[in-house]
Amino acid sequence: MPQEFDAVDLIRRKRDGGELTTPEIDWLVARYTDGYVGDEQMAAMAMAILLNGMRRREIHDLTQAMIASGERMDFSALSKPTTDKHSTGGVGDKITLPLMPLVASFGVAVPQLSGRGLGHTGGTLDKLESIVGWRAELSNDEIMRQLEDVGGVICAAGAGLAPADKKLYALRDITGTVEAIPLIASSIMSKKIAEGTGALVLDVKYGSGSFMGDIERSRELARTMVDLGTDAGVNVSALLTAMDSPLGLTIGNANEVRESLEVLAGGGPADVVQLTVALAREMLELAGVHDADVEAHLRGGQAMDVWRRFVEAQGGDPDAALPTPRESLEVRAEADGVLTRQDAYRFGLAAWRLGAGRARAQDPVVHSAGIDLAVKPGDEVRRGDLLWTLHAEDAARFDRALEALDGAAEFAAPGTAVELPPLVAGRVGADD
Amino acid sequence: MPQEFDAVDLIRRKRDGGELTTPEIDWLVARYTDGYVGDEQMAAMAMAILLNGMRRREIHDLTQAMIASGERMDFSALSKPTTDKHSTGGVGDKITLPLMPLVASFGVAVPQLSGRGLGHTGGTLDKLESIVGWRAELSNDEIMRQLEDVGGVICAAGAGLAPADKKLYALRDITGTVEAIPLIASSIMSKKIAEGTGALVLDVKYGSGSFMGDIERSRELARTMVDLGTDAGVNVSALLTAMDSPLGLTIGNANEVRESLEVLAGGGPADVVQLTVALAREMLELAGVHDADVEAHLRGGQAMDVWRRFVEAQGGDPDAALPTPRESLEVRAEADGVLTRQDAYRFGLAAWRLGAGRARAQDPVVHSAGIDLAVKPGDEVRRGDLLWTLHAEDAARFDRALEALDGAAEFAAPGTAVELPPLVAGRVGADD
Repeated sequence: MPQEFDAVDLIRRKRDGGELTTPEIDWLVARYTDGYVGDEQMAAMAMAILLNGMRRREIHDLTQAMIASGERMDFSALSKPTTDKHSTGGVGDKITLPLMPLVASFGVAVPQLSGRGLGHTGGTLDKLESIVGWRAELSNDEIMRQLEDVGGVICAAGAGLAPADKKLYALRDITGTVEAIPLIASSIMSKKIAEGTGALVLDVKYGSGSFMGDIERSRELARTMVDLGTDAGVNVSALLTAMDSPLGLTIGNANEVRESLEVLAGGGPADVVQLTVALAREMLELAGVHDADVEAHLRGGQAMDVWRRFVEAQGGDPDAALPTPRESLEVRAEADGVLTRQDAYRFGLAAWRLGAGRARAQDPVVHSAGIDLAVKPGDEVRRGDLLWTLHAEDAARFDRALEALDGAAEFAAPGTAVELPPLVAGRVGADD
Repeated sequence: MPQEFDAVDLIRRKRDGGELTTPEIDWLVARYTDGYVGDEQMAAMAMAILLNGMRRREIHDLTQAMIASGERMDFSALSKPTTDKHSTGGVGDKITLPLMPLVASFGVAVPQLSGRGLGHTGGTLDKLESIVGWRAELSNDEIMRQLEDVGGVICAAGAGLAPADKKLYALRDITGTVEAIPLIASSIMSKKIAEGTGALVLDVKYGSGSFMGDIERSRELARTMVDLGTDAGVNVSALLTAMDSPLGLTIGNANEVRESLEVLAGGGPADVVQLTVALAREMLELAGVHDADVEAHLRGGQAMDVWRRFVEAQGGDPDAALPTPRESLEVRAEADGVLTRQDAYRFGLAAWRLGAGRARAQDPVVHSAGIDLAVKPGDEVRRGDLLWTLHAEDAARFDRALEALDGAAEFAAPGTAVELPPLVAGRVGADD
């Protein structure tokens, strides 16, 4: 029988600023998963970890223990290397949609196991389900076959990966213990390491619409996750990218798919293209494909070809019309000026209130709901110019969405110069 | 409908070092009591309170909210003032037994609602149940009548007093959140204020065998509780008393009753007498009886008279023989020396292992089990002198008890001067 510990002893140690040993962390995660350690005990431990922190070795052990709680996938039988991306979550962040086909078009396999949206940031699977017939659930065999044939999948992560993390994540959500770097890092990395990707690029957001807020906390999170991946034998790096304003010009589901198709066709908003290209280069470099001309595969249609085969392979029709909204409302500028800020969190909240997101895990999303932005920070507007178009199935939704937008945008006098935060503000690699 | 709040918002605020408002604390305690706020949420909140603290106003609100969760008793119909004592718990602490009759012998009512022992400190009710027939459960009517007729009761606190505290106390016990001053203070004071006593003396222990350890933390706990009582209109003060060594010469149940009878007969160990007298003076002063000659009521038998009437009123026979142990084991000195230390925690643990205490709330205690001390710190011993006598119903208990005692006592060379901590090291009053 493995060694047994006392949960209260471990909580008190972390509470008093001490360290947990490897066997103690293994025991805690295993016995929390099987229910012997109660939710109330793990909640107290999570709060103690949030306030007192964990050392690198403890975070490594926590990650390994969560991986050990479930199954591991293995892509070593594939004929090509694997590379993946994870984003800490942003408003209007549809990057996975053009990114996966773009990277796969270089002959590298992209096993993108994703989640659904909860709260003010949308979920990649929710967006893709705007495409009639497209399905998110694939068996492990289907994933392997599609990676070999098409080069990429975007699908739901199986329930078998890191079940301890699923249980702990749900607990953190209701106990005010989400924002702990050791817990965020081990949660993300346990799933990605269990998934079995050979390389991984992390898109760690900073700014008002992000988890972490300031860039130094985001850099610390990135550093922690890169170290965890490196320790586990994954080629991993992180980009620190801005999340003050929504990415691109769409927030929602169907409208984000439409914008992604523009990028795959060689167009699209500059920030979405820039981030897609930066992440694709990083993913390819880590997978051993150096100096790839990724822009050429957007302009030349190679990325679009992979997209079409990916949609078909998962049951969708790449030529089917995307759902359009029943009701739309235009918001126009009340005065001349320069847009200085479009708060990501408020716009995400407004789109969520229009029906694009869900309050509870079991709720459906409205695929046609969301917001189209006509302007970006730095743009000059004249009185009466279109700013935003809100979309919903039910006009009754507009009031609460407009409330969320009240004060969400800021304007300066016409002609004012606006300094924008850099979209890619830094990189954290294994050797930094 | 009263205002509703979001538990996660409140946890995050306390986590980040902020304050909770009065309506927020009222809501939290009421909804935790009715089960809407979950144990896992309250555990995270308790850990955040332990690590980030609470302001005086917040602790006051928490105490008031726990009082409001249940019934309040009212002694205003009595013909005399009420005064009570609460100890934060010590090994060999039988002070309540001689103290209640001594104070009551001056015409002041003493409504001592007590608990049972769990862990290494014994419970007053467990000790009294060594007396054949004596019963701890009294109705509120019986309590009132006995306070009027006899002058004092020692009985189980009804389940109706501060049920929120009962629930929170059980949660703290399993989540490593016992040692938080705001939570200890509000737990003790909510019960004592709900009990309705007019005056209250707190015996706050300091030293290695106490909750808080060092005297400064004990003083902070005392200060917090005195402030809470004062704010609630109770005349309250605290004595800071040593708990490095066991009190008196007995640890157990029947043997502690026997020692209490010695004190009531005008004898008994000096430390038990000194603490009984100091607490009695303090309780009487707060109840308006100034300069009482309490020693005279021990020597003169007035305290013993109240004791006998108290035991009879609760169904016991004051002349019945106390249970004696089936098995006893003497431990003798291995060398000449001076006893410098008898660790309270270790001796409490040894008595517990002999059967004097309980591991789970539903377990019975063995009334005859325990330890008699033949020596106190500062005493000279010669090789072969009796040190301790262990008592149990089953000789198989001795091994584990002796393990607990291994190293629990320290000796210096013969003739060494021993400096002992002051038994009463300080006082905290309402006006200090």
